[in-house]
Amino acid sequence: MKPTYELPNFFQKLRMNDQPDLPKILNNLACLSVNELKTEVVSDEIRAIFPNLSNQKIVRFISGKNKVHQPKKVGVLFSGGQAAGGHNVIIGLFHALKKLNQTTQLFGFIQGPDGLLKNTSIELNEKRLSLYLNQGGFDLLGSSRTKIEKEEQFHEVSNTVKALNLDGLVIIGGDDSNTNAAFLAEYFARENISTQVIGVPKTIDGDLKNELVEISFGFDTATKTYSEIIGNISRDALSAKKYYYFIKLMGRSASHVTLECALQVHPNLALISEEIEYNNKTINDLVSEISDMIAKRASHGKDYGVILIPEGLLEFVKEVKILISELNIILSEDKLAILEMDAMQKDDERYEFIVKLLTEASKHFYQSLTREIQMQLLEARDPHGNVQVSKIDTERFFIELVTKELKKRAAKGLYSSKFNAQPIFCGYEGRSCFPSNFDCRYCMTLGYVAGLLINEGLTGYMASVQNLAKNVDDWQIAGVPLLNMMHFEQRKGHLKAVVKKALVDLESALFKTFADKRDDWVLLDDYQYPGPIQFYGPAELTSKVTLTLLYKGD
Amino acid sequence: MKPTYELPNFFQKLRMNDQPDLPKILNNLACLSVNELKTEVVSDEIRAIFPNLSNQKIVRFISGKNKVHQPKKVGVLFSGGQAAGGHNVIIGLFHALKKLNQTTQLFGFIQGPDGLLKNTSIELNEKRLSLYLNQGGFDLLGSSRTKIEKEEQFHEVSNTVKALNLDGLVIIGGDDSNTNAAFLAEYFARENISTQVIGVPKTIDGDLKNELVEISFGFDTATKTYSEIIGNISRDALSAKKYYYFIKLMGRSASHVTLECALQVHPNLALISEEIEYNNKTINDLVSEISDMIAKRASHGKDYGVILIPEGLLEFVKEVKILISELNIILSEDKLAILEMDAMQKDDERYEFIVKLLTEASKHFYQSLTREIQMQLLEARDPHGNVQVSKIDTERFFIELVTKELKKRAAKGLYSSKFNAQPIFCGYEGRSCFPSNFDCRYCMTLGYVAGLLINEGLTGYMASVQNLAKNVDDWQIAGVPLLNMMHFEQRKGHLKAVVKKALVDLESALFKTFADKRDDWVLLDDYQYPGPIQFYGPAELTSKVTLTLLYKGD
Repeated sequence: MKPTYELPNFFQKLRMNDQPDLPKILNNLACLSVNELKTEVVSDEIRAIFPNLSNQKIVRFISGKNKVHQPKKVGVLFSGGQAAGGHNVIIGLFHALKKLNQTTQLFGFIQGPDGLLKNTSIELNEKRLSLYLNQGGFDLLGSSRTKIEKEEQFHEVSNTVKALNLDGLVIIGGDDSNTNAAFLAEYFARENISTQVIGVPKTIDGDLKNELVEISFGFDTATKTYSEIIGNISRDALSAKKYYYFIKLMGRSASHVTLECALQVHPNLALISEEIEYNNKTINDLVSEISDMIAKRASHGKDYGVILIPEGLLEFVKEVKILISELNIILSEDKLAILEMDAMQKDDERYEFIVKLLTEASKHFYQSLTREIQMQLLEARDPHGNVQVSKIDTERFFIELVTKELKKRAAKGLYSSKFNAQPIFCGYEGRSCFPSNFDCRYCMTLGYVAGLLINEGLTGYMASVQNLAKNVDDWQIAGVPLLNMMHFEQRKGHLKAVVKKALVDLESALFKTFADKRDDWVLLDDYQYPGPIQFYGPAELTSKVTLTLLYKGD
Repeated sequence: MKPTYELPNFFQKLRMNDQPDLPKILNNLACLSVNELKTEVVSDEIRAIFPNLSNQKIVRFISGKNKVHQPKKVGVLFSGGQAAGGHNVIIGLFHALKKLNQTTQLFGFIQGPDGLLKNTSIELNEKRLSLYLNQGGFDLLGSSRTKIEKEEQFHEVSNTVKALNLDGLVIIGGDDSNTNAAFLAEYFARENISTQVIGVPKTIDGDLKNELVEISFGFDTATKTYSEIIGNISRDALSAKKYYYFIKLMGRSASHVTLECALQVHPNLALISEEIEYNNKTINDLVSEISDMIAKRASHGKDYGVILIPEGLLEFVKEVKILISELNIILSEDKLAILEMDAMQKDDERYEFIVKLLTEASKHFYQSLTREIQMQLLEARDPHGNVQVSKIDTERFFIELVTKELKKRAAKGLYSSKFNAQPIFCGYEGRSCFPSNFDCRYCMTLGYVAGLLINEGLTGYMASVQNLAKNVDDWQIAGVPLLNMMHFEQRKGHLKAVVKKALVDLESALFKTFADKRDDWVLLDDYQYPGPIQFYGPAELTSKVTLTLLYKGD
């Protein structure tokens, strides 16, 4: 018998039909209004850049008398990398807007900022949206990494919002996208364009947070997805007792993902970039530390283990930063010479070409790397000749260097055990997965809040949900001025006002817990196995929040 | 406040307390006895090798009158790679033995065959085992890949079983381990050692199956785990529209895992090794096919996609087989020359060294590979100088070759789009995960059956559960003579009797369904998202079986 061709998407349908719980305050939107809260005054330097947005206050929504609300036209887009729950933000936004006024229209821009610049959009309706409830990915609209930050781009965007006659624009993005949202809001205000701009905090990296924004959406699902995988792999290591797994975890810059996963799974070692930078550690130091750990475990008969490495690590190590800045100068300076190098057939030739141009210190470090990494550093360039460190296989980088180091030790009689390593990258599979129950609820609520902020006539705000570690009933909803999250940073040689990226705080209770416990994990094999995200079953299982959220601010 | 240090293992405890449903026939073990079924007679050649095991019949358990059962001493071990559910096999075995006679003892061998050879074992008890119910991994005992196949090893094993006075030995393993189990059973019978040997079919690869064994355990969980990941990644591809994901799937030889995952997720392309071998395709053919698909999608504005590649693929491609056999001869022949080559500092030198020694045809193919793959082929050797194809990053191999091919086409004006690829390996995370509800039940039942077969005094049998696609209530339990699964194969130049590995049957309904539908998947982006394995919720979700099992034998 030839099988009937069956769509195996029962789970997708089940998720589509599961209405996320929402905070009680959202029961009746018509009666909501805002209270201004005490708000820190932003610095004069920030005010100077955003004269039209200054003096904004944090607002909290409270229930009052029912009011009649005007119809609106609103646009929404995804900006940057995927994070689980994005579709629920849009569905929440749609529901809020329609509940406030049934004739309000919501437009979605196709492929993110690109669609906003080119005015390619679709009007969203209930029927279409219902297929995306609680689903992963951003595929309803797509996304892109195009940055809208230049005056001429703002001009293009104003053409789009004027053409669609938009009252509001909701940008679902990370710190860079929200920085650009603030500049766009300022531009609109300056140019007397009435479109309000609202940001929604998105990123699996968990680095878009502050006193007013507890966590970005997607972090919960991504860390749970990675923790499952790391748990599975730890159990595999413990069963076969054969491999060291070097696991790289996604996260462009901060190590929040690695810290959360470490506290969930208890690996033998987890590197935290912020700590490494704070202690001024070199690659050599790290290779020594890893090798020491391996040697220590070997002396207890254990030739296996699990090591977590944050993706952004290399950018936090001084000697790498110096080497990369030298390479960036070399590779961007003499285009003809670089073309010549790129045309060389043999890696050895390219190596000789580049090594002559480095300073003594960098040359020494570059020479210590394996040929594969040396070539990766030359090849992973963006169009401006900048080395893209994120393209380097950091997990393989460390395996190669640790292998070398252990061979050296073996030659001196200091190490005599087996070392077999496997590289693993926990990355893309954590961005577009089905959102956890937490992210389903949080994102839906964020969408509602974005709609309510537009309804209040506010611009330059980020949607915020508070008390997230508590029961969803008791979540509070608020709007936070983007300016209140901004500070100055060096970008391409200039000071720029940007939404501050939150790095791991080495003084936080969360980090200290990790720092206290990690010594036990070196030898104990105290691996924990969180298992796959569960959507049905006891709430203790299905609604558990991350430790990062649970202990935020401590 | 510093957080209380909390073990995040609620899920582990929940799984420990969930007794798997078992077939009705296991309600009362004391009354079970066996019926012999009509059984194909094994060939004279097999009978000649196993004179003491011939004429065995397939047995099916049926209920009858209660009997009193004798106490036994039984040993059990894991052999080879991890597969989800192994702990439940041991727990099922323990429960069955204790129910038959409370004074029966069960011993577990530490680190698999190594423990059996060295007689390192622990006696298992209820309390200890209860911590492993429904848990992943093999870490209760550990495992190893040591093969027990030589006469002196059989002698060592007999010392162990004599020392422990074992009535029975249960080997949880794949085709090789069960082949060795058959030889061990024959050896014991010949030497008048009364220990019975029973095999349990384990492997995530799904290639240990036949008319009498419907599926090996672990396949269900592994393919569901991989399908989740591939679904997540497909949704990511569709959202960002930026990358081609080249996903390698674990499976040493057969492509069952890839076929099942393809039918679950509907990737744009899935390579099936057995089909490629059948059609005598070359690497060049495959690179062309992939490139054609990419060009076709590009012409529809789609520069993203998902491609599945079975881990064992390269061994099914003729030119690779020839190259590898040449390399094996070269690398094993002149040890001194090889030492010299290994000592060479530069990859270019090693390349020149080896390329001189290849035949014209192989030289041409070797030259067409990238330097990285060329070096991998030289480095991935076992102690005998044999190239280990499984160590080659097949997904990266194809990315490199396709990149080259597309550049060629671009130079000729035949392709003008972007090609960005990401390599992904779905591997180790699928072996030691929490077993799916299906694998929990199936493994527990297999353990019971193994215990019952020992109780019946049988040796050289594999535990078998039938009607697996039906409700667990109606599962049938049986024992199948290992000899009835054996045939002859070339191994290291000699014909050897081995348990037959099941490859993908190109005439099966399952493969034909795939072959019928795959053309639609090239352009349609018909990705399906199975989501993470769910343990609680509607049975349609939590007890779904694989399509491979559903359409077995069709």
